[in-house]
Amino acid sequence: VSAIDEVTAELARLPGIGRKTATRLTYFLLKQPKSALERLAGAIVALGTRISTCSICGNWSETDPCDICADGRRDAGTVCVVEEASDIGAIERSGEYRGVYHVLGGHISPLDGVGPEDLRIEALRGRVANGSSVREVILATNASMEGEVTATYVRRVLEPQGVRVSRIALGLPVGGDLEYADGLTIARALAARREMAS
Amino acid sequence: VSAIDEVTAELARLPGIGRKTATRLTYFLLKQPKSALERLAGAIVALGTRISTCSICGNWSETDPCDICADGRRDAGTVCVVEEASDIGAIERSGEYRGVYHVLGGHISPLDGVGPEDLRIEALRGRVANGSSVREVILATNASMEGEVTATYVRRVLEPQGVRVSRIALGLPVGGDLEYADGLTIARALAARREMAS
Repeated sequence: VSAIDEVTAELARLPGIGRKTATRLTYFLLKQPKSALERLAGAIVALGTRISTCSICGNWSETDPCDICADGRRDAGTVCVVEEASDIGAIERSGEYRGVYHVLGGHISPLDGVGPEDLRIEALRGRVANGSSVREVILATNASMEGEVTATYVRRVLEPQGVRVSRIALGLPVGGDLEYADGLTIARALAARREMAS
Repeated sequence: VSAIDEVTAELARLPGIGRKTATRLTYFLLKQPKSALERLAGAIVALGTRISTCSICGNWSETDPCDICADGRRDAGTVCVVEEASDIGAIERSGEYRGVYHVLGGHISPLDGVGPEDLRIEALRGRVANGSSVREVILATNASMEGEVTATYVRRVLEPQGVRVSRIALGLPVGGDLEYADGLTIARALAARREMAS
């Protein structure tokens, strides 16, 4: 196999990259200087050698604990629970959150053989166990059926710990047009309505 | 910068890969075993170290001449001229062509500052010069305006060489619906009509 076929095959293994896109990317890479190829390759290898998971929150990190858990200016009393480490970036970009995180590593999905024991739920219980400084756990799992099931399950597990458990609001996205919103979103938005200040 | 940001930035440089896709790919890679990352990285580096261009046709290759130019079973008397090396794969997959190739390395595009002298047109003239065994040159540049201009230019350059120069047919794609074809394609298809055998 030539190096061209090899790269094409490797790229085609990535999610959302078909054979046509992989071929296009390979021919683009062929035109790049060696230094650019080595930089890309080096960064990919570094993912495996330099990155591991934070032993507290489960986020990907080059240090343990991660930058967020180690940051004394963050409120360690508020823990935001997400399905995947990649969700943290989305919340951080909102610039609105000053607490810490907990990565579950997925959601409960019996069809895919993923049960609660496959997620970092016990580690979460440990973090909020009696005597810890955690006051509130915000469940920010996805607004999908699996995300809801997972949030409900985690809420039940944490109930005996006496910690406040909240769920992020579901409703119309900002800028969202009611006409194009699906029925479930509208139902959620109606149910979560708030009295407006006069 | 963390290795995660580095890979995301590198992937986002690839054509058609935005920041969101790059992020998604990076998190996918993070979950792969080190061996898979090293295989991908190694293949990318090999593009730069193992691949160069065939001195005859200009195709990417690990050998010089390339497999196609070196293949005695191919008809060296027919040269198919393409804009990019990646076009060769498309023609080879058709399984219909037994000649050899010539890669121009692009098309004439004054707006992008690409003139005939930037393409491998002189090398093509050299290949079909008097005394060579080339009987026919097939111009398989794209059916775009630039591809047509380039084909016309190359035809003029080759005219004094006394070689037969042909252009691939333009018309309805196989399976193409007349209703959805654009006017130019239909005009070309009409102009290139052939009498049907009775």
